[in-house]
Amino acid sequence: MKEVTAGIDIGGTNSVIGIVDREAHILAQTKVATKDYPDVKNYVKAVHDAIQKALKEAGEVTLQAIGIGAPNGNYYHGTIEHAPNLVWKGIVPLCEMFKKYYTCPVVLTNDANAAAMGEMIYGGAKGMKDFIVLTLGTGLGSGIVINGEVVYGHTGFAGEIGHTIVEPFGRDCGCGRQGCLENYVSATGIVRTMNEIFADRRDPSPLRKLGEDELTSKAIAEAAASGDTLALEAFDRTAETLALAIVNSVAFSSPEAIFLFGGLAQAGDLLFEPVRRYVDEMIQVIFKGTVKILPSGLAEADAAVLGASALAWKEIGG
Amino acid sequence: MKEVTAGIDIGGTNSVIGIVDREAHILAQTKVATKDYPDVKNYVKAVHDAIQKALKEAGEVTLQAIGIGAPNGNYYHGTIEHAPNLVWKGIVPLCEMFKKYYTCPVVLTNDANAAAMGEMIYGGAKGMKDFIVLTLGTGLGSGIVINGEVVYGHTGFAGEIGHTIVEPFGRDCGCGRQGCLENYVSATGIVRTMNEIFADRRDPSPLRKLGEDELTSKAIAEAAASGDTLALEAFDRTAETLALAIVNSVAFSSPEAIFLFGGLAQAGDLLFEPVRRYVDEMIQVIFKGTVKILPSGLAEADAAVLGASALAWKEIGG
Repeated sequence: MKEVTAGIDIGGTNSVIGIVDREAHILAQTKVATKDYPDVKNYVKAVHDAIQKALKEAGEVTLQAIGIGAPNGNYYHGTIEHAPNLVWKGIVPLCEMFKKYYTCPVVLTNDANAAAMGEMIYGGAKGMKDFIVLTLGTGLGSGIVINGEVVYGHTGFAGEIGHTIVEPFGRDCGCGRQGCLENYVSATGIVRTMNEIFADRRDPSPLRKLGEDELTSKAIAEAAASGDTLALEAFDRTAETLALAIVNSVAFSSPEAIFLFGGLAQAGDLLFEPVRRYVDEMIQVIFKGTVKILPSGLAEADAAVLGASALAWKEIGG
Repeated sequence: MKEVTAGIDIGGTNSVIGIVDREAHILAQTKVATKDYPDVKNYVKAVHDAIQKALKEAGEVTLQAIGIGAPNGNYYHGTIEHAPNLVWKGIVPLCEMFKKYYTCPVVLTNDANAAAMGEMIYGGAKGMKDFIVLTLGTGLGSGIVINGEVVYGHTGFAGEIGHTIVEPFGRDCGCGRQGCLENYVSATGIVRTMNEIFADRRDPSPLRKLGEDELTSKAIAEAAASGDTLALEAFDRTAETLALAIVNSVAFSSPEAIFLFGGLAQAGDLLFEPVRRYVDEMIQVIFKGTVKILPSGLAEADAAVLGASALAWKEIGG
């Protein structure tokens, strides 16, 4: 019997469930439509059924632990707390609810911490003790690893680099404050920067023709790749702000590497080249050349499930 | 025979050496004039002699370990590296040099990390696993503790919160860059802010009469205590910038407490009251009420030696 864990990635629309062995092979994978279950009890039942089905599909396996990555997940409490993009409001004791179905360990953390765990166990951070994963999606999530452990802090909510304030009285943030990093550096942040540049510059650009639904980070990346100066400036401004956040994170915890992950990181060198250049310009002398800026070592499609599964392996000492 | 450690606090002018038992009693204390020893070999010999003398004075004791707090100290390498305020230039392998005289463990870290260690073992952070010490002296030093361990990072130089950039293209910093926190929040930072306020405001103030040598953080604190509006504004601006740094640090590692220490923290409520108020205003909702802003639990005069000694106790599992 092969030992496996179940990795569950909870998103606002879908939850992806994978059965994963120690070598990062996803033996079976399935989905549950999160938004179809406004009552979380029914959701847990549906996920349980999906796990059972996937375990059968995976063959001769024994389930060792379940790991869950979820927005606003709290590792200490096994809860999802006030997640704005999920159908369930308030504090959801998800681990406790799963434990009605399972005797094996069930652990939960936020999605960026799960991504960091995946990077450490299966990805580019194997063997590293100090690194940070930044997920550049709709928002900016972060998973911080220090001395080989994900940092949860006193509250269990540590690792909110996306909500460090980089511009006091700056752009409105979904958290109710202003000037948080994720409003500048994320797939949505670069779109806001594009609008700022439309205001600042007079240069023509095909991007100006696009409406709200079409002006995406992907459209900006495509325009930049074909030499559009305004789109290139949007990447430059984004990179400069990201570099500042990286340099300040290095002053704090001096990691060996920063992994960039998620939609905006897909732009590749359009983002990585100026980020590395600005980091090199801005970093304190004692840290010069000590931190690598790297793409994730995990395939985008599998990373969330692998991260959640890695959390489960880590929990049982695997 | 009572077990003791030696704590050495290396400053630019003097090094203070204390013989300390497990209960934070300084059994004997002595000094060596750092600046009188441009050759570090002679310095180590002088400190060795001082330790021997102090051990005799302390009575029936056995030395278990030596802990050293020094500017730009690197824990991993046992070195002092490019410390601008010390007479020795370049990289000084201090632990190695002490080991010629001692068979017991000799460990070294920077002074703010030593302060954090002292706070954890002897001071206000007893029993805490996640906290940060900010030392507000000539510069701003920081010691970060996560999961009960001082954070050294990949390089050994982690914990440079004083060199996080809070104002891009802001005030010149001794590190060669601009806008680092310590140029705003420190004993010298508040003096620079006072000059900024002299420029911004027309109000009269007795502080305007003071020359460079008299306009100190202490003079500003005294003026503020007697109701000088410009001095009060200097504390307000300093507190607002410090609160921003605290709020961003909380987003990063979610500590249970932030300890403020050193010259500027001596101003007491003049600083603590507005810092707490601004932190409460600026902090992200999920962290509200989770972090205490506290004065150090150690007496200013003894803290550095106790911190260095705590480092030694920690090293030998004490």
